[in-house]
Amino acid sequence: MGVVVTDGAGADVSKLRELNSLSIVRAMRGQPPATVTELATRTGLSRPGTDVVVRGLVSDGWVKVVEPDGSSVGRPARRYRFNADAGHVLGVDVGGHKILVLLADLEGQVLHSHRLPVEPDADPAARLEAVDTAISQCLTAAGMRPDQIWAVTVGVTGPVDATGRTTLFTPLPGWASVSPTEHLATRFTCPILVENDCKLAAVAERWQGAAQDADDIVYLLAGMRTGAGLILDGTLRRGYGGAAGEIGALKAVRWISAPSHIENCPGMPGDVHPNDKAAWVFERAREGDRAARTALRRYVKDLAVGAAALVLTLDPQVVILGGGYSRSADLLIDPLEQELRRLCLRVPEIRASDLGADSVALGALRVALDQIDARLFTDGMPAPLTLHA
Amino acid sequence: MGVVVTDGAGADVSKLRELNSLSIVRAMRGQPPATVTELATRTGLSRPGTDVVVRGLVSDGWVKVVEPDGSSVGRPARRYRFNADAGHVLGVDVGGHKILVLLADLEGQVLHSHRLPVEPDADPAARLEAVDTAISQCLTAAGMRPDQIWAVTVGVTGPVDATGRTTLFTPLPGWASVSPTEHLATRFTCPILVENDCKLAAVAERWQGAAQDADDIVYLLAGMRTGAGLILDGTLRRGYGGAAGEIGALKAVRWISAPSHIENCPGMPGDVHPNDKAAWVFERAREGDRAARTALRRYVKDLAVGAAALVLTLDPQVVILGGGYSRSADLLIDPLEQELRRLCLRVPEIRASDLGADSVALGALRVALDQIDARLFTDGMPAPLTLHA
Repeated sequence: MGVVVTDGAGADVSKLRELNSLSIVRAMRGQPPATVTELATRTGLSRPGTDVVVRGLVSDGWVKVVEPDGSSVGRPARRYRFNADAGHVLGVDVGGHKILVLLADLEGQVLHSHRLPVEPDADPAARLEAVDTAISQCLTAAGMRPDQIWAVTVGVTGPVDATGRTTLFTPLPGWASVSPTEHLATRFTCPILVENDCKLAAVAERWQGAAQDADDIVYLLAGMRTGAGLILDGTLRRGYGGAAGEIGALKAVRWISAPSHIENCPGMPGDVHPNDKAAWVFERAREGDRAARTALRRYVKDLAVGAAALVLTLDPQVVILGGGYSRSADLLIDPLEQELRRLCLRVPEIRASDLGADSVALGALRVALDQIDARLFTDGMPAPLTLHA
Repeated sequence: MGVVVTDGAGADVSKLRELNSLSIVRAMRGQPPATVTELATRTGLSRPGTDVVVRGLVSDGWVKVVEPDGSSVGRPARRYRFNADAGHVLGVDVGGHKILVLLADLEGQVLHSHRLPVEPDADPAARLEAVDTAISQCLTAAGMRPDQIWAVTVGVTGPVDATGRTTLFTPLPGWASVSPTEHLATRFTCPILVENDCKLAAVAERWQGAAQDADDIVYLLAGMRTGAGLILDGTLRRGYGGAAGEIGALKAVRWISAPSHIENCPGMPGDVHPNDKAAWVFERAREGDRAARTALRRYVKDLAVGAAALVLTLDPQVVILGGGYSRSADLLIDPLEQELRRLCLRVPEIRASDLGADSVALGALRVALDQIDARLFTDGMPAPLTLHA
């Protein structure tokens, strides 16, 4: 039935007040300060009922009073805003070449970010040390202690299983049996989640990126690696064992070889740094260089086979092109669409990501905030101070 | 927030009673007759509240009183059962070679079934005429009029768009612009739904077949055609344009050519009927015939590429092997699993369908019943007589 309804007049009043508290908090978040009357309208609750709940939220610390500034005539109504500083979350991207840490408030506003380069061949100990350092520097910059963080999400490369490990496959050297959750649990008492980087990037695109209007999304990571993250009906698809979106492992869809067309483009000078090879090819292609254009065309042809497999399987509303190569999306989207027209029954809209290199850490923030919301629904809304532990 | 809660004591009592009616009906369906006390326990409602609602449901015609049979000592409590005969639904499978019509009550009990062969190359007019005839014969056998049917679902081959047509692709000759909904609307006043056959078969497997315990399901149609139906989180995935599951259209996954290994097996006598070719090959393979075994091995190798694309994309809990060839699933499942082990990161359980050739029409029944449930939730539960129109 989906809805549990207690028996008429015997409805559980304290549970009802809790649900109403959550309704009001949700109606406040991300919005300018509002009066009780406005909040009552937004939530559909009565004005007196809203007033009682708002007072409770103020005394618990979830809501702040915004005193009238006296500029208007007469006695203006008192306004209230969600206390986004009641708690904070961390989003961490553990990449091949960098660690990125974002710190945000409960409305998802990024307050601090810290990026640390890491050697591609760093072993797990070195990589985890870089994670620790980046987190410490981010917290210090924000003037915050670990016990003020309510949730942490860590993005890694490879499918993440139920224990937060990437045992099935990961390109991070030696990382298969690493548990970021266990490692960070020595510093944080809050929930620590681990998730696949492409999945987090997909979440970020729907939250703040190019897919905010869509519920059925295929996110393509197009870069030195090729990957996918899937959102259906607005929900991230993890798969039964955490391995959804790993179509790239199938040789027949040609994602494994796709980036080599670009990375090994004929005519590339020997002194181009691996990180700059793609930029070199895209630049030459813009200038009309024949070898670079051929490399791009071959890359898109290979990318399109796996993309077509995803589109034919899921029939999404949009495909988001993200990852390092998406900085040159203008060179990729049209030929990709042409290939998909050739291969698919129905071609969805293809859009370029505009979140850049932050998308994984941003998605990690969103997952951390969702975790907090889920706890509020399960445990109700005690005073914020008791929640983070 | 998901839950709309009216303001405390001001809760909308008639809406609450409607929700409680639905709770009680759901607690009754598919169950033996129950007392008011038992129903109160199952639903969590109070005994007096349950009593009031049950009396209302009896007078509306949704619930029947089961009088005590007098065999027990003392005065036994009156029992109630859901009146499954209050309405009926039709599930229709419009196949290449046959029309199958199932008629069921509101608990999904099949009361009558009628099968009519149809020529594979029949044009739409001939195929629709066969549909009409099969429906008429089924209704006549059941002693029922079209206006006693509350919902009809029609299964067809090819992705079904929002208008109920298969404009993107269908192997049924000339069928692309046919609207079974418009055709049947001249006879039925109830809702008429159209859905893709593989999707309906997947629904049937979760309802009554091999996937009853699973929420994330890939259904494979293995037969003279190869297709897929996807269920994620217990919900059938239609895709944004109705074309989810159409991975078979991608040449690279080799489903288009897969059945030809079996249908064109060397050594097949010229007089074997097209419908019997697969059975001939499976029989020879069982006897150890080398050509037949090679044909099977090649078929499975091709089937596995598309299956791997689905498994890697979705990471489902189970793969159900259905369709005509699944009658010989014992010869297919082990080699398919071996291939998937080679191609995938994580291999789900593979099970054979046991619903046989009825699965599409069975899934159609389930979709029709779901449509009725959805209407009950939207429109509430008036007396059954007013519902079907």
